[in-house]
Amino acid sequence: MFVTLDEIVARLGGDLAGDGNVRISGIATLDAAGPEQLSFLSNPKYRARLAVTRAAAVVVAPDAAADCPTAAIVTPQPYLYLARVAQWLNPAPRPPLGVHASAVVEGVVSDSASVGANVWIGPGAVIGDDAVIEANCSIGASCRIGAGSWLHAGVTLYGGCRIGNRAIIHSGVVIGADGFGFAREGDGSWVKIPQTGGVAIGNDVEIGANTTIDRGALEDTVIETGVKLDNQIQIAHNVHIGAHAAIAGCVGIAGSTRIGARCTVGGAAMIIGHLEIADDVNISAGTFVGKSIRKAGGYTGSAPFLEHGDWLKNFSHLRHLDSLADKIRALEARLAELEKKS
Amino acid sequence: MFVTLDEIVARLGGDLAGDGNVRISGIATLDAAGPEQLSFLSNPKYRARLAVTRAAAVVVAPDAAADCPTAAIVTPQPYLYLARVAQWLNPAPRPPLGVHASAVVEGVVSDSASVGANVWIGPGAVIGDDAVIEANCSIGASCRIGAGSWLHAGVTLYGGCRIGNRAIIHSGVVIGADGFGFAREGDGSWVKIPQTGGVAIGNDVEIGANTTIDRGALEDTVIETGVKLDNQIQIAHNVHIGAHAAIAGCVGIAGSTRIGARCTVGGAAMIIGHLEIADDVNISAGTFVGKSIRKAGGYTGSAPFLEHGDWLKNFSHLRHLDSLADKIRALEARLAELEKKS
Amino acid sequence: MFVTLDEIVARLGGDLAGDGNVRISGIATLDAAGPEQLSFLSNPKYRARLAVTRAAAVVVAPDAAADCPTAAIVTPQPYLYLARVAQWLNPAPRPPLGVHASAVVEGVVSDSASVGANVWIGPGAVIGDDAVIEANCSIGASCRIGAGSWLHAGVTLYGGCRIGNRAIIHSGVVIGADGFGFAREGDGSWVKIPQTGGVAIGNDVEIGANTTIDRGALEDTVIETGVKLDNQIQIAHNVHIGAHAAIAGCVGIAGSTRIGARCTVGGAAMIIGHLEIADDVNISAGTFVGKSIRKAGGYTGSAPFLEHGDWLKNFSHLRHLDSLADKIRALEARLAELEKKS
Repeated sequence: MFVTLDEIVARLGGDLAGDGNVRISGIATLDAAGPEQLSFLSNPKYRARLAVTRAAAVVVAPDAAADCPTAAIVTPQPYLYLARVAQWLNPAPRPPLGVHASAVVEGVVSDSASVGANVWIGPGAVIGDDAVIEANCSIGASCRIGAGSWLHAGVTLYGGCRIGNRAIIHSGVVIGADGFGFAREGDGSWVKIPQTGGVAIGNDVEIGANTTIDRGALEDTVIETGVKLDNQIQIAHNVHIGAHAAIAGCVGIAGSTRIGARCTVGGAAMIIGHLEIADDVNISAGTFVGKSIRKAGGYTGSAPFLEHGDWLKNFSHLRHLDSLADKIRALEARLAELEKKS
Repeated sequence: MFVTLDEIVARLGGDLAGDGNVRISGIATLDAAGPEQLSFLSNPKYRARLAVTRAAAVVVAPDAAADCPTAAIVTPQPYLYLARVAQWLNPAPRPPLGVHASAVVEGVVSDSASVGANVWIGPGAVIGDDAVIEANCSIGASCRIGAGSWLHAGVTLYGGCRIGNRAIIHSGVVIGADGFGFAREGDGSWVKIPQTGGVAIGNDVEIGANTTIDRGALEDTVIETGVKLDNQIQIAHNVHIGAHAAIAGCVGIAGSTRIGARCTVGGAAMIIGHLEIADDVNISAGTFVGKSIRKAGGYTGSAPFLEHGDWLKNFSHLRHLDSLADKIRALEARLAELEKKS
Repeated sequence: MFVTLDEIVARLGGDLAGDGNVRISGIATLDAAGPEQLSFLSNPKYRARLAVTRAAAVVVAPDAAADCPTAAIVTPQPYLYLARVAQWLNPAPRPPLGVHASAVVEGVVSDSASVGANVWIGPGAVIGDDAVIEANCSIGASCRIGAGSWLHAGVTLYGGCRIGNRAIIHSGVVIGADGFGFAREGDGSWVKIPQTGGVAIGNDVEIGANTTIDRGALEDTVIETGVKLDNQIQIAHNVHIGAHAAIAGCVGIAGSTRIGARCTVGGAAMIIGHLEIADDVNISAGTFVGKSIRKAGGYTGSAPFLEHGDWLKNFSHLRHLDSLADKIRALEARLAELEKKS
């Protein structure tokens, strides 16, 4: 598929600088782009690469337009613009309409949906218009999958989960498994608390491979509109994630915690249970969040690394910080005593 | 399903306070409960909510009974009692008996078991009475699944795994994959050590979604009776987990480590290999366990988080703690010198 | 299967000490070995166990040969030698040749390959000679699986992934899911960047259960020859892992980071995006890697744990290290002042 710069600007806006007849067939980085590709400059530190790019054209911000040796599309947010071009040029190839002969369907599937090989769809489940359910998915009884949602191969939904429209759910995701809830007997053994809540997922949510979202204990686990979850995230029962939050890989969020709207959480951060995280909080990668965060802003808690020998020498003091602090206090007192005398 | 308080107390014990004819159909929190629901007060900090609950009745400890404006069931452990009521009122809906036509069964399945769509059961595998194997599970050759065990959709067992009775295994769990064992060649390449041990899982074990339990290298990996594992836990080869331990999500336990009976491990804790953890140890969430723990009790190692700017200022000193300690020692020596003179 | 020590030495080298007719049928530790088993002494701290082993024979290094009460094979690297013996004695049992009747094959499968029950192989996919695709795998369109590769049950490959020869891919692995790439709108919502790169995996790679490897955004994610990945590892888009690196369980590697050849990464380490890790770097378990590592060697960053009460006392000072450092500086200045006077 080829499009001209004129066609792109007509569809997506921006100011054209140079020849609108230039044709492009794809997107690439400044270094890798060839003469049929559109590139972009988003991070100013790559600006010097503009001079040497072989790209057909480059999407740039106004302040970089003068440096661009090729045709350019000038727009305040080049990366966002590029995303829209890329979506246009790379529509996901849809599998054939209809239900594969090997699928077992006990629910109801829209005529405009696609259901792949060896899928199981339980009784009472409803698969919406234009939805795609790829091979080897299991959709529990009474689930609802909204219009245009796409479940990649090997997704599992327990009974009663509700997924909005245009969701993208990647392979290995498990939604609706029992939350981890037990009462303890006197002898130390555990009695299971039946997890009778559900999972409600809004529109335009994307969920990465092998992420797990447990059903609620009594009420629902809720993922609001536009939330983006990366791979291998664990969302425990009764968590509530606000709209347009974005959470990177390997994060864990324990039970009943509420994450505000538009929050970002870096990779491998861990958030304990029963907390409140305000809207617009940015938690850095590797941070352990052990108490609520009431105010928007950036929060970090990761430890630095050192050469192994330096680590041994320095981190061993972590066991004795209190004694170090005591020594400083003692020094201050003794010094004050001396100063008084002198 | 409705039950009266009289029926509950007759079945589960406890002391009734108020009208035994009150009917309940389910469980809810004090805030959410409606006039057909039973609630509970377990955490004293919610005691004020008793006064305003709309619940039909509340399960309370003796010291809270006087404050309860509704009918009450009085018992020393309200949460444990609630678990038993909830289990009674919410029996898991069993799928139909028998083997689905699309399943491929090369082993032996009890007549009272249920096997779902597109399941594969390998040669020599034995599925016990009343067991449930949901859609898209793969059960390797010669596995044994005990009576009443329930494998949710998409569970994978490698050959030869042994699962006890009444296990609950959630979707995406992989049991019996090869442990991570290699010997290194002089050129840095790796030679695989065949993993010829198995996996032995006791009775009444629950395993959360996408958790992985590797087979042993030579001997078995062992999960004892009553252990509860949350989602996305990694159990390496030859780990041994003692009875009634409970481990929260995202925990990793490296090879050959032994966890004692009744231990609890908080979310995202990491335990390295070849350690011994005593019985009744409680490891907090986010703790890195790099050496054995010989004594029961609570252990913690997580770092606090700070506003990002404060983190930059404070955590950078972690690289120089040894020099801080040196400076304190030097100050002490110089001060002692001055004190001698004064 | 029985082999004599003479046969082993003839095939694998090493020096025989004792009776070459001794027959062995398997491998075991010094403690567990019985009279038909071969054991090994690799870690010097177990040397005392040589005296009491019931093993038929032991593989030992030259300096331990004199202490060995049984027949012995003497070789400089006993563990590596043992790996080769174990591979010989424990060939993985191959499933039957051919495509199971319940599999759905739209691509091309070599006559010498095995395809299990309920597998889906998409259009244009090519499965090489002697490959094994176990039950419930999904192989996307146009994937290539090299000769002798083995995909255990329940592996999912998105379209266009390329796997080399002799790969071992464990259950629940997802390869080729979309990387986590979004541009942000002014209102905080996210616009997906189509992930149009692929995944290229070299020869002799092993990938542990439930590990995820995302496809590249524009160019490929690359795993080079001989890399060994443990369970539940997350490899983000455009990561490049050098040959013969070995990475333990629960590690996360964020986007575009390059890991050098022969690196080792301990369990639950987390490496942020856009870094360069040199060849032959060893990162310890639990380390958070927040900047590039330019020099071979060992690096560590994990925090120690303490009894909970000691942790409360000591780790709270982490929030005030900068103020502790300030106090030390102030003490130094005041003391210097006094010393000048005295």
